[in-house]
Amino acid sequence: MAAPIEYADAAPEVRAVYDDIKQTRQIKDVNNFWKYLAHDPATLKRTWQSLKQIMAPGALDAVTKEMLYFAVSVTNGCEYCIASHGTAARKAGMSEAMFGELMAVVGMANETNRLANGYRVPVDPAFDK
Amino acid sequence: MAAPIEYADAAPEVRAVYDDIKQTRQIKDVNNFWKYLAHDPATLKRTWQSLKQIMAPGALDAVTKEMLYFAVSVTNGCEYCIASHGTAARKAGMSEAMFGELMAVVGMANETNRLANGYRVPVDPAFDK
Amino acid sequence: MAAPIEYADAAPEVRAVYDDIKQTRQIKDVNNFWKYLAHDPATLKRTWQSLKQIMAPGALDAVTKEMLYFAVSVTNGCEYCIASHGTAARKAGMSEAMFGELMAVVGMANETNRLANGYRVPVDPAFDK
Amino acid sequence: MAAPIEYADAAPEVRAVYDDIKQTRQIKDVNNFWKYLAHDPATLKRTWQSLKQIMAPGALDAVTKEMLYFAVSVTNGCEYCIASHGTAARKAGMSEAMFGELMAVVGMANETNRLANGYRVPVDPAFDK
Amino acid sequence: MAAPIEYADAAPEVRAVYDDIKQTRQIKDVNNFWKYLAHDPATLKRTWQSLKQIMAPGALDAVTKEMLYFAVSVTNGCEYCIASHGTAARKAGMSEAMFGELMAVVGMANETNRLANGYRVPVDPAFDK
Amino acid sequence: MAAPIEYADAAPEVRAVYDDIKQTRQIKDVNNFWKYLAHDPATLKRTWQSLKQIMAPGALDAVTKEMLYFAVSVTNGCEYCIASHGTAARKAGMSEAMFGELMAVVGMANETNRLANGYRVPVDPAFDK
Repeated sequence: MAAPIEYADAAPEVRAVYDDIKQTRQIKDVNNFWKYLAHDPATLKRTWQSLKQIMAPGALDAVTKEMLYFAVSVTNGCEYCIASHGTAARKAGMSEAMFGELMAVVGMANETNRLANGYRVPVDPAFDK
Repeated sequence: MAAPIEYADAAPEVRAVYDDIKQTRQIKDVNNFWKYLAHDPATLKRTWQSLKQIMAPGALDAVTKEMLYFAVSVTNGCEYCIASHGTAARKAGMSEAMFGELMAVVGMANETNRLANGYRVPVDPAFDK
Repeated sequence: MAAPIEYADAAPEVRAVYDDIKQTRQIKDVNNFWKYLAHDPATLKRTWQSLKQIMAPGALDAVTKEMLYFAVSVTNGCEYCIASHGTAARKAGMSEAMFGELMAVVGMANETNRLANGYRVPVDPAFDK
Repeated sequence: MAAPIEYADAAPEVRAVYDDIKQTRQIKDVNNFWKYLAHDPATLKRTWQSLKQIMAPGALDAVTKEMLYFAVSVTNGCEYCIASHGTAARKAGMSEAMFGELMAVVGMANETNRLANGYRVPVDPAFDK
Repeated sequence: MAAPIEYADAAPEVRAVYDDIKQTRQIKDVNNFWKYLAHDPATLKRTWQSLKQIMAPGALDAVTKEMLYFAVSVTNGCEYCIASHGTAARKAGMSEAMFGELMAVVGMANETNRLANGYRVPVDPAFDK
Repeated sequence: MAAPIEYADAAPEVRAVYDDIKQTRQIKDVNNFWKYLAHDPATLKRTWQSLKQIMAPGALDAVTKEMLYFAVSVTNGCEYCIASHGTAARKAGMSEAMFGELMAVVGMANETNRLANGYRVPVDPAFDK
């Protein structure tokens, strides 16, 4: 089981990514996810650059993107991602009322996904247009 | 493999649900999902009532809820739900630019969920507060 | 994409498995699953022997086992397995009323699994005894 | 991370659900799942009412329903649900011999689901009738 | 439902990605995956660049990487990815004997993953070192 | 929650499996997975015999098989299996560079599986040959 790589022990290419994360997010230290990915600097850099591009506000705002991220993580049962993106969504503006409704939708979607599977429901032609 | 139950052949309790769906959504006919669930009127009624309550705009608006529904369906690989909720999200106002960003987030979340799993990243204490 | 291996074209070790499936299940021909697995006779034989042992009535009867198999297949969204084990469960005695209740449980379990994930519910000490 | 809402601190609408759970199940306190859902009283109430309806004995008895719930939870890897529904299934009458056979079926179904996927096995026409 | 974007109809930024895919893989046309992603040029470009970097032979050779890709796709039940990466793995050198063993491992892993879940097996201290 | 069954407390049929595992793997004690499966001797024996057959080097070598096992376990989020097969893969020769590339492939496959789902990409005819 690997240990996290702290800034003080990091190679220059890893520090450069940590610095960019800290500046972009205006935080003092990066979270564990990055400190473990740092064992593979190529993956660290590529993952951060992709995430930075994808999570920047655009046609969707930051809180919507974080809620979508959270919905996927809950569906997959990824404990780390549930914890980190739950925190991020709240930081981006998700209220407890929004959280409650988000969870209700995620639960319901997981239920009806299986109802559709088990009843072998064919796609309506109207949905294929 | 069951056949869909059309309005003309439906029992009164099934027709009552179909009528409520059509009125709520302002549509002329219900989609296949409901016509298959109708084989179990108790599940049909309960599922519709839950869905009606959950998907009504509240702290989250309709398009956000539909995008969350779609994100879960894509993660689970439910073809019917991808088709139906992709259509519903567009109808609720999702533009193609929003769809593109939604898909980018869903893809990335599915990737980093596995990076967190495989690197066995422990939850940061800050995320447990 | 591989083609199914029919009895007439099968090697003796494959035929031996086909014969045992047909005799055990009292059927005239094996279903596609076996005709594709036959491309790897070792996997064909091991899978059939495991399945034969596991699905034989014991502390659980045949219909309960087939319903459990179906519940897993629906959760995973495996179309082939939903079709084949739905048929097998009905053949083993699952009525449409049982099917309706089975699907209701499977849907609900998939929903509450995600509610438990997203709310990060800790296991009650009573459940660890 | 939310804290569980205990009965003493709960709003009247939450207490009403807790009371119904305790009376229905003949238990002294509700388990953590409900104490976390209580942060969203609408979801708490809807989830309990659905669960109460679905899990009541009908065409399937209580132990079969709990085993199906457990099979889904194991497939999804939901730790909380594995712990709670494993306990519930045993309470409803699942013996250790039944548990062993249940687990064997769940394991096998997860294996053959992927064999069917990877070999791209087409659904037999007989399964579509 | 979107239509694929063919080279003749593609914007210059999309054509640039198509050209790089064709040159890298020495093929005459890109497969459907890219023609659909082309609806979002930013995702098209980022996904191709990541894939090109990740799938290049390094500490692991091309066929091993394609088999890993296939194993994930089978586990998730992604039909498109099973078809495309099954083809890619064979092109990279996967024999039918290798395919058979790959599928056996993938099936077994999906089975024992659930056995570990359901029996709630704690991680051995030796695995945490 | 079951307790592990140690060798000293095990029935002869369980001991026989433990002995074979220890001899095959040249280890002094079996890991927890087997000590929990031992509650169902039939599953213990069948699982070990299948695993022994499947994981033996053949057309694929041991380290490739362990990496495939790990890739599936990461995709499913099975903590125990990630820990045990991560250890096994390293023991079989997986270097940290190989691990980094393996994880990059697994992450990317999980991402593109969902991109293919969400864009509803049809299988290219060339992949069906």
